Amino acid sequence: METPTMQNPTTTKRPARTPVPMNGVDTPTLFATIGAVKGQPELGSFQFRATNRWQQGTHSRTRIEGFSGAGGEHAHAREFSYDADHPAVLVGRDQGPTPVEFLLHALASCLTAGIGNIAAARGVTLYEVESTVEGDIDLRGILGISTEVRNGYRQLRVSFRIKGDAPAEKLEEIVAQSRARSAVYDVLTNGVPVAVSVNAG
Amino acid sequence: METPTMQNPTTTKRPARTPVPMNGVDTPTLFATIGAVKGQPELGSFQFRATNRWQQGTHSRTRIEGFSGAGGEHAHAREFSYDADHPAVLVGRDQGPTPVEFLLHALASCLTAGIGNIAAARGVTLYEVESTVEGDIDLRGILGISTEVRNGYRQLRVSFRIKGDAPAEKLEEIVAQSRARSAVYDVLTNGVPVAVSVNAG
Repeated sequence: METPTMQNPTTTKRPARTPVPMNGVDTPTLFATIGAVKGQPELGSFQFRATNRWQQGTHSRTRIEGFSGAGGEHAHAREFSYDADHPAVLVGRDQGPTPVEFLLHALASCLTAGIGNIAAARGVTLYEVESTVEGDIDLRGILGISTEVRNGYRQLRVSFRIKGDAPAEKLEEIVAQSRARSAVYDVLTNGVPVAVSVNAG
Repeated sequence: METPTMQNPTTTKRPARTPVPMNGVDTPTLFATIGAVKGQPELGSFQFRATNRWQQGTHSRTRIEGFSGAGGEHAHAREFSYDADHPAVLVGRDQGPTPVEFLLHALASCLTAGIGNIAAARGVTLYEVESTVEGDIDLRGILGISTEVRNGYRQLRVSFRIKGDAPAEKLEEIVAQSRARSAVYDVLTNGVPVAVSVNAG
């Protein structure tokens, strides 16, 4: 049976064994970071930001540059820029994926980042983690054809294939723990208040 | 006062005037598409997909290639690929934005695509649409330090600057209508069921 600290890598207790870097995770620094935020909770307050500019039609471009957190302002290693558009079948020009496809990317990448960290914290070497995400949506919502159909996805399904030097059950627990601590999974399943303001003229 | 069809570009009635392409939107085809889905509701059933592969640490890469809808299978004009990671301050290597930043991109680009379409449907020429999105998050949730802090964003704020050949009030109505029909806004504010399955070994 695992110790409680092995069950949850994000415990604030010291892990049962000395954490070592693995899976590309600097595990000692990860534990030190958790300890620092525990000692100074205000270090955990982050603000992420994006700036979007309309190009034409349904095509727009978002820049992601800086964020605040851990008591200061940070810039990403480089500026990230992403296009989104509608495909031809939805009367766009396919200059990027649709906005709803980026939700699938956000979900898969958040769960997978957690799996990387949690596996390292539990001393499990990962060989491979792959996931597919599917989202079902009835466009009669956004097209305004039916008021009984919601605008967004009806449901999302994530399927993981995971291989590592641990029994299947332990790998499954790592995925379960990642879901239990995923920021994107939380936002998508529970929702978040969104305020929209407009400066027109 | 506007006619009902001018209020909602996604009405299934014929617009009061002949729609013309504008803002890069093929407005006649947009109305024809809405008419087609109204006549054959099953055309509105879409499934979007993404495939993600873990790279190392918190770094993963998502491919977005095909989707189904409008009665068939479709490929994007090209394969889209996106990296996500955690920044150094969160013990990652900053090989891409964080997953939660992609939520901001999804939200801004969805609302902006709607603005492009709705303005065209209402005969408004857009000059400029820019938005910033901010998300507040307390990382004590995902770090497992506090069970009272949620994992995801506490709140999101979207601020639009919009310019076009219409009074401010009409531009504001276009933004409001986009929000009312946004797939991403719906998912983020109302949540969606997410099923996670694992094939381990």
